[in-house]
Amino acid sequence: MEIKVIRHSLSHILAYAVQELYPGVKFAIGPAIENGFYYDFELKKPLTPQDLPKIEKRMKELLKQNIEFKKKLISKAEAKKIFKGQPYKLELIKELKAGKATIYESGGFLDLCAGPHIKSTKEVPSDAFKLTRLAGAYWKGSEKNKMLTRIYGLAFNSKKELEEYLQREIEAEKRDHRILGQKLELFLFDADVGAGLPIWLPKGATIRHIIEDYLYRELSQQNYQWLYSPHIGNLELWKKSGHWNFYKENLYSPIKIDEQYYLLKPMNCPFHVKVYNSKIRSYRELPLYFTELGTVYRYEKSGVLHGLTRVRGFTQDDAHIICTPDQITQEITKLIKHGLQILKVFGFENFDIYLATRPEKYTGSLNDWQKAENSLKYALKELNLKYSIDPAGGVFYGPKIDIKIKDALGRPWQCTTIQFDFNLPERFQMSYIDQKGVKKKPHIIHRALLGSLERFIGVLLEHYAGALPFWLSPVQIWVLPIGKNHEAYAETVAQELKEKQLRVEIKDENETLSKKIREGEMQKIPYILVVGDKEIESKSVGVRERGKGNIGTMKVDDFINDCQIKNKGRIN
Amino acid sequence: MEIKVIRHSLSHILAYAVQELYPGVKFAIGPAIENGFYYDFELKKPLTPQDLPKIEKRMKELLKQNIEFKKKLISKAEAKKIFKGQPYKLELIKELKAGKATIYESGGFLDLCAGPHIKSTKEVPSDAFKLTRLAGAYWKGSEKNKMLTRIYGLAFNSKKELEEYLQREIEAEKRDHRILGQKLELFLFDADVGAGLPIWLPKGATIRHIIEDYLYRELSQQNYQWLYSPHIGNLELWKKSGHWNFYKENLYSPIKIDEQYYLLKPMNCPFHVKVYNSKIRSYRELPLYFTELGTVYRYEKSGVLHGLTRVRGFTQDDAHIICTPDQITQEITKLIKHGLQILKVFGFENFDIYLATRPEKYTGSLNDWQKAENSLKYALKELNLKYSIDPAGGVFYGPKIDIKIKDALGRPWQCTTIQFDFNLPERFQMSYIDQKGVKKKPHIIHRALLGSLERFIGVLLEHYAGALPFWLSPVQIWVLPIGKNHEAYAETVAQELKEKQLRVEIKDENETLSKKIREGEMQKIPYILVVGDKEIESKSVGVRERGKGNIGTMKVDDFINDCQIKNKGRIN
Repeated sequence: MEIKVIRHSLSHILAYAVQELYPGVKFAIGPAIENGFYYDFELKKPLTPQDLPKIEKRMKELLKQNIEFKKKLISKAEAKKIFKGQPYKLELIKELKAGKATIYESGGFLDLCAGPHIKSTKEVPSDAFKLTRLAGAYWKGSEKNKMLTRIYGLAFNSKKELEEYLQREIEAEKRDHRILGQKLELFLFDADVGAGLPIWLPKGATIRHIIEDYLYRELSQQNYQWLYSPHIGNLELWKKSGHWNFYKENLYSPIKIDEQYYLLKPMNCPFHVKVYNSKIRSYRELPLYFTELGTVYRYEKSGVLHGLTRVRGFTQDDAHIICTPDQITQEITKLIKHGLQILKVFGFENFDIYLATRPEKYTGSLNDWQKAENSLKYALKELNLKYSIDPAGGVFYGPKIDIKIKDALGRPWQCTTIQFDFNLPERFQMSYIDQKGVKKKPHIIHRALLGSLERFIGVLLEHYAGALPFWLSPVQIWVLPIGKNHEAYAETVAQELKEKQLRVEIKDENETLSKKIREGEMQKIPYILVVGDKEIESKSVGVRERGKGNIGTMKVDDFINDCQIKNKGRIN
Repeated sequence: MEIKVIRHSLSHILAYAVQELYPGVKFAIGPAIENGFYYDFELKKPLTPQDLPKIEKRMKELLKQNIEFKKKLISKAEAKKIFKGQPYKLELIKELKAGKATIYESGGFLDLCAGPHIKSTKEVPSDAFKLTRLAGAYWKGSEKNKMLTRIYGLAFNSKKELEEYLQREIEAEKRDHRILGQKLELFLFDADVGAGLPIWLPKGATIRHIIEDYLYRELSQQNYQWLYSPHIGNLELWKKSGHWNFYKENLYSPIKIDEQYYLLKPMNCPFHVKVYNSKIRSYRELPLYFTELGTVYRYEKSGVLHGLTRVRGFTQDDAHIICTPDQITQEITKLIKHGLQILKVFGFENFDIYLATRPEKYTGSLNDWQKAENSLKYALKELNLKYSIDPAGGVFYGPKIDIKIKDALGRPWQCTTIQFDFNLPERFQMSYIDQKGVKKKPHIIHRALLGSLERFIGVLLEHYAGALPFWLSPVQIWVLPIGKNHEAYAETVAQELKEKQLRVEIKDENETLSKKIREGEMQKIPYILVVGDKEIESKSVGVRERGKGNIGTMKVDDFINDCQIKNKGRIN
């Protein structure tokens, strides 16, 4: 039996149970949804979460009665008679376009419903569903209507599936970066500042800085050239680039300065093009790699904002590769390879790769698109990478490759994007002088490897459930003096660690050692060093490693050495 | 004789010479100005710069004739008769409020003028002035009037003073960071992007990154905590902070998002306050040092924009020190001391320090101001620093200390500012719990050490005339292979240097060695390494040091070692 049908039938059984337990209830609607079902009721007395087990119990009893679902086609007049005490059903009957009404009878419960349904509750395992929560919901979703009580349930094909789902939910909740962000004091969303505009708290800013620093070194090694561009620019730039037309719904209202209009930048592209165009370029300079950690601002509806992974202002690890047409395949191959290398440094090993092809609305010639799509395919093949086609998923200005990171729970997150651009070189009249002294048009590839620092750090937190690798941990080490007279030694140890660029805090609050250790574990501190008389005597530290507990005593120098190796190698 | 009087009298002598050399000239006005004088003329034929030496020669001859300046008080009617062919003078006579007119007669030249003037040209040295340039100038400065020819001159008390001034001008022009920025490809201003909005080109971005990296390490060592805050925030924040009222003329027009208004941030303060207020704070946490490289946007009239030193968007090295009232003097002392230390790292040794006191409009009690001013004075005294009072120069929210850097030419540049704030703790209800468990209001100090990265880098360029210290140079080393067959070795040397984090470029263009060396000197490259057969054989490099020329041959390892010492020590 199809799971959707089972879910939908369970919503009827839920309604049947509620009808029995809460006489006088009025029924609205009860569809199947993702992972389960719900039903909306108008009740004489409000329910509390404590009512759910009782309802669930009654549902299980009903399921075991092998109740049949009987479909009947009746006249509207007959339907009105049947549902005469049910105002919501009457309203639905009135709205029916068909001449007749379909009803389902299951035991003592009758519902106006088009189906389909199970034949009998025999088909539904009684241990594979669960009522989860109550919510308020307006009739027909409109604030003008009455608020009803909605009961949500989960339902699967087997008890095992249900349990796995619940387990994943618990895992996901533990990994929710919004909760971790608060608990670990990483970032702040403040209603007074504005929705979707994170402020990075000191520890979160440290993570961000480590990543920025890593990117700076890594990309500089690869001959990227860094730029900084302003956060506003004359609106004409984005009219010229086409974004004002194509992306207007994501742009903010312009700012007026001296009779001209400026836009909060939604992307860095026009600035990078301006840098390219600031002098005559020769083929000898190409490929050029311009890169910037550029903070851009794009409108998102408040309903879709979600922690760091969906915000209104974010910092792209943005780059534009400007090259000759001959260089394009090689550059794309290099980019994908380098991108995957970098993602692996952060501990990501599994990816879903998509090649997004020409959409309905596009610029550039069909021939250009064909060539571009082919070079993307060629690069993926060259690297032996599995990929799916995302048909017509490209951007108006060119096809692209998207790489979704798969986290520890197997959830995919859109991060890396590598995009062709036929649009900018044309609109901004970019050129270079080729070997023969002839003016030619270069190709542009946009790319973001991590995507945005905000989203990427959100994904990192979810992937590691907050227990970031040593090199990324904002606080790497706590030093806990056992008693008052060990504080001076703790200070000495901490100072030594600091001098070696390790991030360390002393916890000398007047609390029990075990409480401090527990707190350190909650804070996901990689190493907790306990120091007392024994450690002072032997110039050592008692080491507790995250996830392992006490791993014994180490000489301070040896401990520092191990930490430095981890930092340098960017390993956990 | 007062120099202003000499300058004014020279403008008459200029007019006298022009009257002789260009018959039919019509005279407008000729005042003394800073460093010299000008006179506006209507001429029958336009002048060219080639005319200036001739006029200057005639002026010198006139000066030697010991011409007397005779003042006469005459009736307006008489004046109109005297100046009957001079429409500008007639207009001025008409506008005279007094009943009579003052005229000055010097030799054959008569001018309508209130004086005062010299008694005789005997008093004026004939070698202490110089005509410098021609310009167009509207009569009475209005575009509606006729465009006149303005001749500018410099004038001093002695030939020596004039020459010194001219020398300083030449120096200043060589040091103009706007010119250097273009020549060295450091930054870009583009009319399409917008006035006052610099884009940092790769080499300029490198300088900026080195400074940011230095600040990050230095301040982290000093227990500063880093934050990142967004570039927009709800307008209500700045209404609450008082800036919307007090600084409105510097703020941009708000952006509308979902029925709310947002402001491009003019300062970072409210965000830092929000971070402080995000949890209950204890006296044990204080002082707290929050810092951010925050890019802020403030409106400036287009007329006052000037390269990097006066822009519309700039990145403050901003910090807020939040402390108990008891800690304030100590914190200010530490701040000043640390600030001067940092400025010295960049090579600045001379400063003008100002203590700016309570302005007319202010918040906070008189008693608070008194205490705050005293603690600033106390700190300056404690550090044995000379300072001047800037009476009523404080900000509405508190008194401040401003430190002006004096550059190599002795020109002062406003950079460091350390400001008390009575306003924010009050308006944002900031608090901490003191030793006794009582809620108290903390003090806030705003401070920017470099001021803004844009301005500071502008000042660095002017101070060093572009020849930045080794550790700040975007490109530190050029490697020049003498011939084709030395290119592989040049590549090896460059690679070795790169691996040691030195910033190196190979110049293997098909040009003469001497031309490349000249270009390297123009580009202010600290070291140019020349490599040929001899160097390959001995694994060495021929070293040319900026400003010194050839300093001999060095082993590659020794050269690397020297460079690393310079980088690490941040020395030139």
